[in-house]
Amino acid sequence: MQELRGINVANAINEKILEDVKGLKGAIPHLAIIRVGERPDDMSYERGATKKMDKLGFRVTSFVYPNEITNEEFQKEFDKINEDEDIDGILLLRPLPKHLDEKAIENKINQMKDLDGISPANLAKVFAGDDTGMAPCTAEAVVEMLDFAGVDLKGKKVTIIGRSLVIGKPVAMLLLKKNATITMTHTKTVDMPKTCRDAEVLVAAAGVARMVDESYVGDGAVVIDVGINVDSEGNLCGDVDFDKVKEKASILTPVPGGVGSVTTSVLAKHLLKGAFLRRG
Amino acid sequence: MQELRGINVANAINEKILEDVKGLKGAIPHLAIIRVGERPDDMSYERGATKKMDKLGFRVTSFVYPNEITNEEFQKEFDKINEDEDIDGILLLRPLPKHLDEKAIENKINQMKDLDGISPANLAKVFAGDDTGMAPCTAEAVVEMLDFAGVDLKGKKVTIIGRSLVIGKPVAMLLLKKNATITMTHTKTVDMPKTCRDAEVLVAAAGVARMVDESYVGDGAVVIDVGINVDSEGNLCGDVDFDKVKEKASILTPVPGGVGSVTTSVLAKHLLKGAFLRRG
Repeated sequence: MQELRGINVANAINEKILEDVKGLKGAIPHLAIIRVGERPDDMSYERGATKKMDKLGFRVTSFVYPNEITNEEFQKEFDKINEDEDIDGILLLRPLPKHLDEKAIENKINQMKDLDGISPANLAKVFAGDDTGMAPCTAEAVVEMLDFAGVDLKGKKVTIIGRSLVIGKPVAMLLLKKNATITMTHTKTVDMPKTCRDAEVLVAAAGVARMVDESYVGDGAVVIDVGINVDSEGNLCGDVDFDKVKEKASILTPVPGGVGSVTTSVLAKHLLKGAFLRRG
Repeated sequence: MQELRGINVANAINEKILEDVKGLKGAIPHLAIIRVGERPDDMSYERGATKKMDKLGFRVTSFVYPNEITNEEFQKEFDKINEDEDIDGILLLRPLPKHLDEKAIENKINQMKDLDGISPANLAKVFAGDDTGMAPCTAEAVVEMLDFAGVDLKGKKVTIIGRSLVIGKPVAMLLLKKNATITMTHTKTVDMPKTCRDAEVLVAAAGVARMVDESYVGDGAVVIDVGINVDSEGNLCGDVDFDKVKEKASILTPVPGGVGSVTTSVLAKHLLKGAFLRRG
């Protein structure tokens, strides 16, 4: 079994970004991170994204608001950032507190600044297989890992566990575009282990700690673990039980150190893409 | 084997429409059909849609333009129809001639008039599983047929042949929302017959005359044929070889007389939905 670590994939993406940015006219790309409240998950992702931008020499500004901000104020603040000519991309940490109208944000975010593909315009492009838009970063990170590992997806049986709009569904569309045969499974799927065992590539995005054991994995399967969970002992772990699966999989991604490490590189890639799009 | 005919499904939808329209305030719903040129397929669909609207007592106006119309003129004409307060829905017969900017139309069509779900806004809703929008009519017709036949989709293995944005992909999302386990296959799929044979529900939207024979169908499978092809002898036929499959399938839709007969009823349902949305 080959352990496919995210760091190598991320480094390859970073190198490409540093090459591509040379062709960009105007100011250094500038990321805006919007955070409401002090949720540890959000702050951890914010730190990771900030570090990545620093590493690439990109600018990053965090806009932080208290949980108590009114919807009216928040929408105004968002509009300012969305219209700011000096900002090339926006990362909105979600979910927002319930009293803030997230739908309104999705509908008005400039699609060229919409780095995590939350706007209808970008979602429709992902659905259509049109790669001129931006897909949700984590979904695209899955594809980057498979590409880096040299997995030829054409005609391959790919099974995805989970059908969220940020991972399961966009991963399905991105891999369909690569000519894989796609099976989408979820909590209502009957005999999930058997369905997964038939797959040549298994993408686990269920959000359930270590649910994927050896009964889910066919011999020689490629297994990409998108889960980020905390187990009962407080340890970070994926959806895949690494130790139980490692003898059967041909390629396996760890958690931590897997897909998660690639996501902020995809974010940076999208920031640059947005900058190119906006500056024509 | 039960032959599932479209006419019964269409009649049930029509009855519901006639009931629902009683709650609509204002003018009788008004459909605009936009056709460029004289393509027989387009004209046949136009006739069918017109007949259906007549039957339901809805208004319909055909806007017909010559193939030679310039893009500028066509966009202007479209804008007038799109902005006309007296028009509740638009059916654009596609594909348009290549010199006309179809993308521009998709991007500007009023999403409440977008009866066939061609706008990014409606595609994104289909992708997200949000049923406040409008799905492509033929895709929704597939769901209507399954619903009418009382097929419980929860946990069912559904395989779809074809991945177009008007049928395969939206059918996948609509049935995923009904909690089916979805497999999407296409021309690059390896061993298509076996993949299809595993399905409890098979939706054929390949556009290849009679390609689905008994080797594609598991015992007792429900088979929905979305194909509309002309065979080498000039006869209308589906993607399914009806005679070869009828002994294995539990439910089978004919062509003609199947899904196609339901599509214009879904169109009428969307026209009414759009009217409610706009006047709501």
